[in-house]
Amino acid sequence: MKIAICGYGNLGRGIESAARQNPDVELIGVFTRRAPESVKTFTPELPVYSVSDIEKYRDDIDVLIICGGSATDLPKMTPVLAKSFNVLDSFDTHANIPQHFAAVDAAANESGHIALISAGWDPGMFSLNRLYASCILPDGKDYTFWGKGISQGHSDAVRRIEGVLDARQYTVPVPAALEAVRSGSNPELTTGEKHTRECYVVAEEGADLERIEREIKTMPNYFDEYETTVHFISMEELKRDHSELPHGGFVIRTGKTGFDGGHKHVIEYKLTLDSNPEFTGSVLVAFARAIDKMHKRGVNGCKTVFDIAPADLSPLSPEELRAHML
Amino acid sequence: MKIAICGYGNLGRGIESAARQNPDVELIGVFTRRAPESVKTFTPELPVYSVSDIEKYRDDIDVLIICGGSATDLPKMTPVLAKSFNVLDSFDTHANIPQHFAAVDAAANESGHIALISAGWDPGMFSLNRLYASCILPDGKDYTFWGKGISQGHSDAVRRIEGVLDARQYTVPVPAALEAVRSGSNPELTTGEKHTRECYVVAEEGADLERIEREIKTMPNYFDEYETTVHFISMEELKRDHSELPHGGFVIRTGKTGFDGGHKHVIEYKLTLDSNPEFTGSVLVAFARAIDKMHKRGVNGCKTVFDIAPADLSPLSPEELRAHML
Repeated sequence: MKIAICGYGNLGRGIESAARQNPDVELIGVFTRRAPESVKTFTPELPVYSVSDIEKYRDDIDVLIICGGSATDLPKMTPVLAKSFNVLDSFDTHANIPQHFAAVDAAANESGHIALISAGWDPGMFSLNRLYASCILPDGKDYTFWGKGISQGHSDAVRRIEGVLDARQYTVPVPAALEAVRSGSNPELTTGEKHTRECYVVAEEGADLERIEREIKTMPNYFDEYETTVHFISMEELKRDHSELPHGGFVIRTGKTGFDGGHKHVIEYKLTLDSNPEFTGSVLVAFARAIDKMHKRGVNGCKTVFDIAPADLSPLSPEELRAHML
Repeated sequence: MKIAICGYGNLGRGIESAARQNPDVELIGVFTRRAPESVKTFTPELPVYSVSDIEKYRDDIDVLIICGGSATDLPKMTPVLAKSFNVLDSFDTHANIPQHFAAVDAAANESGHIALISAGWDPGMFSLNRLYASCILPDGKDYTFWGKGISQGHSDAVRRIEGVLDARQYTVPVPAALEAVRSGSNPELTTGEKHTRECYVVAEEGADLERIEREIKTMPNYFDEYETTVHFISMEELKRDHSELPHGGFVIRTGKTGFDGGHKHVIEYKLTLDSNPEFTGSVLVAFARAIDKMHKRGVNGCKTVFDIAPADLSPLSPEELRAHML
């Protein structure tokens, strides 16, 4: 299977790394909006092309994985590229998924391509676990916890405050909330009751640290509804202790069965990830394999992780899967 | 969707209970090899029929869920019943799955039916988690732990010892082994190193307890390779403290990503079940929904959980799933 990456940032590098771990996957190139000669890939021989030339490579790519922001990049790029390629993205603005799906589905159906949107871990593997668990335990409730891990959006928000040179924000699940959920007591919890936020901030020399801390803690939507801790550290400490992008979290569903609802069950899915972009890249490569197989069977249109039979993710044959993994 | 149960024991009752929690599922009856009038279902109005009359109900049943032992019942029943019905079973002898699949596939294809074998939680949800995790982290290793829970097979084995009136055997995961796996150190562990076995035994009055304990602990395959504890208790205590059928376990995959393999990841799926048969019944009802949908789209032949797109398990429409669960 021949794949290509459109957009070479952290996620693009994660896909490049994942492709090297999958012998059936050949990464044929990277497409960028920057000057191609300015992009340095980890794999020295990997070609870098301008995205404006991408149409020339229509016949060379089985699946194009599009890496871009969900706010402005993907809503434009994925429908346009689905006219010429089988495409995969990790669109993650949950509220706008139906709209994005409709645009991509129209483009893919018209051109006879397949597309998969919103793959990754949330949306993605967490969504799958919410779905499986809710189908098994209809009389139940599910809970998603994120962290401990770095939220790029919240880190960016802190960096935009005057006097802040750099910052990292960790989202941290509240242990007592996790335990209450696991107990099956079905607590009602807001996102703020489930998580705390920890900020590591490098301030300009002489900046008003009290003001910065106050601006962080009162920032609407991002921080005001959370218990937030702010640590001021040096640039050296930030680089030494906070240069990685760990993340993870939990999807937990508790439910009852039995004629009198007397039996409790807990289904828990937990991810502990040293590198969010490399794990997401690994998920995307597995789903690229699936849509390539499906397209070769004649399937077109836009799909989500819910539409993919798990066997299609694997390089193994159905016989091997039944013999060794069932 | 109209379902029926063939075989009314613990699992049959679990399915009856699960059907009541799913408004789109109508349980039309129970088929039994016993005298129908001797079978008392929990739902008073639920009809009980002799399995010898089952052919008369060909047109009334969308999916027949077959409950029986994997050693002798299911290898015979599932292929025969797949000639007349869409069928679902929880065949769990891992080594014989390819053979069972071939027999059921031939029968279902010939008659134009769909069948799903080996659904439940292991095989079933645990298999799905092994598959997803191995596709995402190809450079990794997976581990399955069972328990804490009652193993019916091991309880039966203890009950067959002379002087034993009744017994329950709990399979218990070893905490240190779980922690070693979660750490990502990729330990090599035998099943015996991952689990201990705890037996609660009611002995006949005057029985030789030392002999019973020795016979348990040295029983080949069942106990000899495990650290086993034997507790002698009264029948009253057994009924009071050990009358439920809890189970569960863990599927954990650890793996590395990155250009130098420098990032570790842990994917963990954990089940904590008050009632093994009710949870298994709940899984079976969800998969019955999926194969009913697939058969109505024209799909025939034998399937496993690996072949089922998750969306087909849900009573919700694709639009609802994308809007609310992705």
